[in-house]
Amino acid sequence: MTAFPEVSKIQYEGPQSDNPLAFRWYNPDEVVAGKTMKEHLRFTVTYWHTFRGTGSDPFGGGTMQRPWDDGSESVENACNRARAAFEFFEKLDAPFYAFHDRDVAPEGASLSESNANLDAVAKVLKEEQERTGVKLLWGTANMFSNPRFMHGAATTCNVEVFAYAAAQVKKALEVTKELGGENYVFWGGREGYQCLYNTDMKRELDHLGQFFHMAVDYAKEIGFTGQFLIEPKPKEPTKHQYDSDAAACLNFLRTYDLMDHFKLNIETNHATLAGHEMMHELEYAGMQGALGSIDANTGDLLLGWDTDQFGTNYYLTTQTMLVLLKYGLAPGGVNFDAKVRRESFEPIDLFYAHIGSMDAFARGLKIAAKIIEDGAIQNVVDQRYSSWNGDLGKKIEAGNVSFAELEKLMLEKGEAAANTSGRQELLENIVNRYVDNA
Amino acid sequence: MTAFPEVSKIQYEGPQSDNPLAFRWYNPDEVVAGKTMKEHLRFTVTYWHTFRGTGSDPFGGGTMQRPWDDGSESVENACNRARAAFEFFEKLDAPFYAFHDRDVAPEGASLSESNANLDAVAKVLKEEQERTGVKLLWGTANMFSNPRFMHGAATTCNVEVFAYAAAQVKKALEVTKELGGENYVFWGGREGYQCLYNTDMKRELDHLGQFFHMAVDYAKEIGFTGQFLIEPKPKEPTKHQYDSDAAACLNFLRTYDLMDHFKLNIETNHATLAGHEMMHELEYAGMQGALGSIDANTGDLLLGWDTDQFGTNYYLTTQTMLVLLKYGLAPGGVNFDAKVRRESFEPIDLFYAHIGSMDAFARGLKIAAKIIEDGAIQNVVDQRYSSWNGDLGKKIEAGNVSFAELEKLMLEKGEAAANTSGRQELLENIVNRYVDNA
Amino acid sequence: MTAFPEVSKIQYEGPQSDNPLAFRWYNPDEVVAGKTMKEHLRFTVTYWHTFRGTGSDPFGGGTMQRPWDDGSESVENACNRARAAFEFFEKLDAPFYAFHDRDVAPEGASLSESNANLDAVAKVLKEEQERTGVKLLWGTANMFSNPRFMHGAATTCNVEVFAYAAAQVKKALEVTKELGGENYVFWGGREGYQCLYNTDMKRELDHLGQFFHMAVDYAKEIGFTGQFLIEPKPKEPTKHQYDSDAAACLNFLRTYDLMDHFKLNIETNHATLAGHEMMHELEYAGMQGALGSIDANTGDLLLGWDTDQFGTNYYLTTQTMLVLLKYGLAPGGVNFDAKVRRESFEPIDLFYAHIGSMDAFARGLKIAAKIIEDGAIQNVVDQRYSSWNGDLGKKIEAGNVSFAELEKLMLEKGEAAANTSGRQELLENIVNRYVDNA
Amino acid sequence: MTAFPEVSKIQYEGPQSDNPLAFRWYNPDEVVAGKTMKEHLRFTVTYWHTFRGTGSDPFGGGTMQRPWDDGSESVENACNRARAAFEFFEKLDAPFYAFHDRDVAPEGASLSESNANLDAVAKVLKEEQERTGVKLLWGTANMFSNPRFMHGAATTCNVEVFAYAAAQVKKALEVTKELGGENYVFWGGREGYQCLYNTDMKRELDHLGQFFHMAVDYAKEIGFTGQFLIEPKPKEPTKHQYDSDAAACLNFLRTYDLMDHFKLNIETNHATLAGHEMMHELEYAGMQGALGSIDANTGDLLLGWDTDQFGTNYYLTTQTMLVLLKYGLAPGGVNFDAKVRRESFEPIDLFYAHIGSMDAFARGLKIAAKIIEDGAIQNVVDQRYSSWNGDLGKKIEAGNVSFAELEKLMLEKGEAAANTSGRQELLENIVNRYVDNA
Ligand SMILES: [Co+2]
Ligand SMILES: [Co+2]
Ligand SMILES: [Co+2]
Ligand SMILES: [Co+2]
Ligand SMILES: [Co+2]
Ligand SMILES: [Co+2]
Ligand SMILES: [Co+2]
Ligand SMILES: [Co+2]
Repeated sequence: MTAFPEVSKIQYEGPQSDNPLAFRWYNPDEVVAGKTMKEHLRFTVTYWHTFRGTGSDPFGGGTMQRPWDDGSESVENACNRARAAFEFFEKLDAPFYAFHDRDVAPEGASLSESNANLDAVAKVLKEEQERTGVKLLWGTANMFSNPRFMHGAATTCNVEVFAYAAAQVKKALEVTKELGGENYVFWGGREGYQCLYNTDMKRELDHLGQFFHMAVDYAKEIGFTGQFLIEPKPKEPTKHQYDSDAAACLNFLRTYDLMDHFKLNIETNHATLAGHEMMHELEYAGMQGALGSIDANTGDLLLGWDTDQFGTNYYLTTQTMLVLLKYGLAPGGVNFDAKVRRESFEPIDLFYAHIGSMDAFARGLKIAAKIIEDGAIQNVVDQRYSSWNGDLGKKIEAGNVSFAELEKLMLEKGEAAANTSGRQELLENIVNRYVDNA
Repeated sequence: MTAFPEVSKIQYEGPQSDNPLAFRWYNPDEVVAGKTMKEHLRFTVTYWHTFRGTGSDPFGGGTMQRPWDDGSESVENACNRARAAFEFFEKLDAPFYAFHDRDVAPEGASLSESNANLDAVAKVLKEEQERTGVKLLWGTANMFSNPRFMHGAATTCNVEVFAYAAAQVKKALEVTKELGGENYVFWGGREGYQCLYNTDMKRELDHLGQFFHMAVDYAKEIGFTGQFLIEPKPKEPTKHQYDSDAAACLNFLRTYDLMDHFKLNIETNHATLAGHEMMHELEYAGMQGALGSIDANTGDLLLGWDTDQFGTNYYLTTQTMLVLLKYGLAPGGVNFDAKVRRESFEPIDLFYAHIGSMDAFARGLKIAAKIIEDGAIQNVVDQRYSSWNGDLGKKIEAGNVSFAELEKLMLEKGEAAANTSGRQELLENIVNRYVDNA
Repeated sequence: MTAFPEVSKIQYEGPQSDNPLAFRWYNPDEVVAGKTMKEHLRFTVTYWHTFRGTGSDPFGGGTMQRPWDDGSESVENACNRARAAFEFFEKLDAPFYAFHDRDVAPEGASLSESNANLDAVAKVLKEEQERTGVKLLWGTANMFSNPRFMHGAATTCNVEVFAYAAAQVKKALEVTKELGGENYVFWGGREGYQCLYNTDMKRELDHLGQFFHMAVDYAKEIGFTGQFLIEPKPKEPTKHQYDSDAAACLNFLRTYDLMDHFKLNIETNHATLAGHEMMHELEYAGMQGALGSIDANTGDLLLGWDTDQFGTNYYLTTQTMLVLLKYGLAPGGVNFDAKVRRESFEPIDLFYAHIGSMDAFARGLKIAAKIIEDGAIQNVVDQRYSSWNGDLGKKIEAGNVSFAELEKLMLEKGEAAANTSGRQELLENIVNRYVDNA
Repeated sequence: MTAFPEVSKIQYEGPQSDNPLAFRWYNPDEVVAGKTMKEHLRFTVTYWHTFRGTGSDPFGGGTMQRPWDDGSESVENACNRARAAFEFFEKLDAPFYAFHDRDVAPEGASLSESNANLDAVAKVLKEEQERTGVKLLWGTANMFSNPRFMHGAATTCNVEVFAYAAAQVKKALEVTKELGGENYVFWGGREGYQCLYNTDMKRELDHLGQFFHMAVDYAKEIGFTGQFLIEPKPKEPTKHQYDSDAAACLNFLRTYDLMDHFKLNIETNHATLAGHEMMHELEYAGMQGALGSIDANTGDLLLGWDTDQFGTNYYLTTQTMLVLLKYGLAPGGVNFDAKVRRESFEPIDLFYAHIGSMDAFARGLKIAAKIIEDGAIQNVVDQRYSSWNGDLGKKIEAGNVSFAELEKLMLEKGEAAANTSGRQELLENIVNRYVDNA
């Protein structure tokens, strides 16, 4: 039995191909900047959108046609769905996948039943991983969908919900380890507040700090050596989420002495919901040694919610790859936390969507690699900061100057040396030249 | 000679008064929650908007009628303007004012000339302070208006501009000390970037860290004991400002080991431009011991720039005062970083604007004090978190529990205790009850 | 059997009451500006949020506790639910309710079955209306939840879906007439596009024009004399909705010659999602004779989706009532298209929410009526435009002047007469004075 | 004397050229879709940004280096500046320019003096047009910068300001005619309100209607046959501008019976400030026969003000050209209402900026033309709406069906025919294929 009988393994056919079921740019074994595309990009399919997304939205029901799924919450259906998923990963040539515990296995009537369900499906996942070679980029626990988490998980006002969340993460860590997951992610969709009047922010954040320390301790205890990641998002579903953006996450990690244990999983659409460009969040995390992985999608900047669209914009993929080539990505990956539109409800749309975005990232990789190889942007930057390479700059950077000395210098000179143009428009033209020719 | 011949000292006349030149709520010596209104609110007039604002905007020229100002950049005019300002402070009964160096005195042809100009005007400011008893809440250096700062001041790519900025802050610190300023503020309007392609974010932030350490050192050297403050703002004029919001500032301060020396000056309109409520930013700073002072204004949430309007909304002033009563404000103040609309160009509009906002804060103080006195909100919060006061909560908060113990507990129980309603609507109704009756 | 055993009919107790289950301002028979509050406000409870809202959101399941509802899609459950709803309307003293066809009765396996279900429940609704005196403000057809409408209803690319929508509106009109509904509303949640590449906007709008003309014709045919209303919303669920704001709706109505048959149902949260203040949309519709009814709620301006919160802000209710007193509201109403927060899941929260917002509107009515009675705002406006009341203004307004004459005048004068202050701050202070004292 | 001694006439060198002062795509005489690029694109340089922009912003002074400009407000300087401008137009090979009256000539002490100044400079403009063959795309009157217009021009509360504005437009129409301008534009930067409390919206809009009718009459009187255009913008500088977006403009034009005389000048950054995509506004105007011209720029969607950046994004230029090829552009043009960044202050940056955007539009033209030639998007659209081409669709579109007939049909069928996928992702991939290969 096959879930996608009409699709064979997707092949690379080159840029001119108009076969919508072929790669035009993603050529896994092609070497770019010293590594294969496959090694650079570490493409990851998300289980939740691609295999659990229904197409429902706040104003309407599900639309997705998924013939392999009987719609039930049975473990058997979950196992069948897992097999369909691996067929998809294989045909798409995606080396990784990622999941929440409740994506892969149904929640039971009690915690122990939920755990048993998860174990049963994890067995199939493991078999499929071994059969196909597809690996687990990361696991995580869904602590936002069940009404029990309405007031938060680690930051809930209900102490037993905190305990429940702890138990759930413990199990998810065990399963992630069992499946060889290379990372473990926390996305705190309900870790925040709807209303400041009823919230004790300090107490909630203290609890979150405790929770993360327990997770670190437990990982150590069981020998899970994957990277912990926090995924920032400013809002939605909650009015304010504590992990608003990279800055809020890092301030939290510094405050609670967790910087050694966590990096960030940066999502494009979350960056823009926070008012930042993706490239900003990547660079901001990267320069602090905290860039872990990316949730590769795109948002509609004219809409105010997380549309989680597949990204096909070459400017976005180029900018993303410029930073990823600088700081490195592994053990992270390019994870498609993206969903087909509600109206793209046929199984084949899943292929179109992933292929298009994989191609866009492959193209972005090539453009970025060429820009870097040529120093096309870096040369302009180096020139711009060149005044700092003189004696005065070196002294300041070494911390060997005081206000008094600098004042003395400037009183003598009267005015600073002239500025030079920032050349933003020229740089934008240079990027277009590489989009044209890379 | 008088700048405001038609206005006498503003008097308190009580809520029913329809005299637009009287206070209806601000009664300086009235005691609320154990202190006089004057002690609580520490109202501050900003020199830049109120005495240097012209009413120009990106699409049109200045409109303001300021008969006491001859429009010249002479030191003499600057001194006359200063005297008009103090007449205003006195008639308004404002205990504080705040300024940038370039607000009070004209920039000269060289740094030394600028410094001399500043000294000349500072002499008048000191005389007027002594004459009137009005005090300086804070001083600061304008390092964003002059084209020399186009690429930043402490974060510029031009090392001599960094040196110039250092000299300027040195002088501004000296003058602030001379005038008894209780704080010193940094607002980094050009400390950020317009374009990521041409920017080395890490190097720029390292420079900023160096700069602040030099400022701390110099303050120590000269015995300036006022509080250093950073004022967050996410954007405008610059596309991205490094001090985006409280979280970004605090992450920066922690990274560069500056937490002991800086607090934050939170502005309402900057909070909302960053996507946060004012109350959020206040509480977030306060809980980390970093709430220093406020720039009291309001923005238009349907516009995307800093409108710096005078705040008259009782919900906003109540929320602000709820947090200020919790964490305290001194040596900070309620600084009206607000400007009359371009169309409100008559001198008398300056009085209407300040009186209205002072009344709104006085009213907010009374409402907040009564809510706190009655425990009207706190009781709901206490009830909400009460489960954490039991044995389990205490153990978790003390850091004495592991995931394994919590899992054991939850496997036994199977499900967490039921949640209770968050009661947001009830709390909103309670606030209205206090708005009606406080 | 009773759905709300713990609640008796809500009574007016006056502003000082701290009984959360009493009205503090809404006193139905109190006369304000010549009419009773009940006549002015025409409060309406929405069936969808209050009786069908589950508390689910895109990231989590339902939370609401509704003991009277067995959760099934049976007609019997629908009838029981209807009886609970009328108990709520009665206890709340709400004179009106509003519904979509699919709110009150379950969708069947075929159109005829759906129609039969609707008839069955409509019978109970009619009995309950007669028993209680509660009336139907408006009915409407839900043409956005079922996946059949994924591409639109009247603007779908699937001609049979258009036909289905026509049949559904036909039935909804009949039921609305049968129940004495005073209006009929169209909200086009799927009438728009997700993507311009696949959309023929002109053809879709032509179809929408046809659809509305058929509705008008059919209403005439069956003698339905209620007012047709369109409810603008710019986006969500659809990326772009054709009825974006009042301007887009009115341009459409003028283009398709429908102005005589339609007015607008203005919703606060939709206004702000479109970038407009509620007061703007009300005035804009009102001045064109197109203000029909309001969906009274509020949004969170820092969030980018329709939060549909209960409005308790006195500034908002005052501004709303200032316009409604100017243009009149009947046969429209103040319809609470608002939902309790997901975390406010207890039945009692429904009462708190409605009571608080009814009080806020009653208070807004009193404030607005007093402002109007005193001419407190109008006097400033009259003064501001007074130059237009002279000869020149009259000639221009009569259309009796040409550019040449105006140029001649101005060449003689050289410059226009001086402007006067717009007095925005003073007006904001005046509003606060009325908030304090009305 | 030359203003740009270091720049020769910009030449086309083809896509691989890395000469930043050459065109890589814009090849004026190259034929695309039956016309030369020059005929299609009608590139226009704006006088205000390129020759009057200073680089000032609300927080800082001007930065631009313009050696040909002595900074004075003399007529002589204005004439010199005009000659520099035409040197720029020539070297850039731009066939058109556009101006406001106050851009080209200084405002005098009286209206008659201003008019005389304008005549003096217009003489030079005419000479330069004749010398170079560069033509005037449109003229307009600046009725927003002078403080006299603080409350509006045609919508002011000051009747004499209305008269002044009339005189100013009269003169601007005469000059535009004299210079062979092909259009005349109205952008109402102050035609709106800052505050609803002090505003009589209906009266103001009535005045605006009168004003436009007078303009139409006067154009007829003097034989000006150019196209009148309104440029929508929702806000900035004014809180709300009446010409918010295409819908608001067209509703206004229909209301005041002006549809025959006006089209729209759509600006990218204004579209997005209004919450719409550029492509939406173009299509919306086009389908109503009201697409006149475009202000080609781009905004930063993460900033809330009009950044007026040069557009280099191929997706934007492709989408724009897809619509322009559909509806035609002449007598409109692609007008660069865009400014170099404040930090790009050297004259050479003006060339980089214009060249880059001209190339991006040329490339967008080629991509769009190929997509249209291949039917690559249209085929998907045709298929999507194909059900409307059957008998039922034809009958509905002809207006020959009633609700009753459609109900009958659907009662028989029970359910509508199945939907098909909207294929948004596939279409986005197709666009990328054309970006790669066109
Ligand atoms: Co994500
Ligand atoms: Co997302
Ligand atoms: Co401020
Ligand atoms: Co501000
Ligand atoms: Co509504
Ligand atoms: Co809504
Ligand atoms: Co423009
Ligand atoms: Co613009």
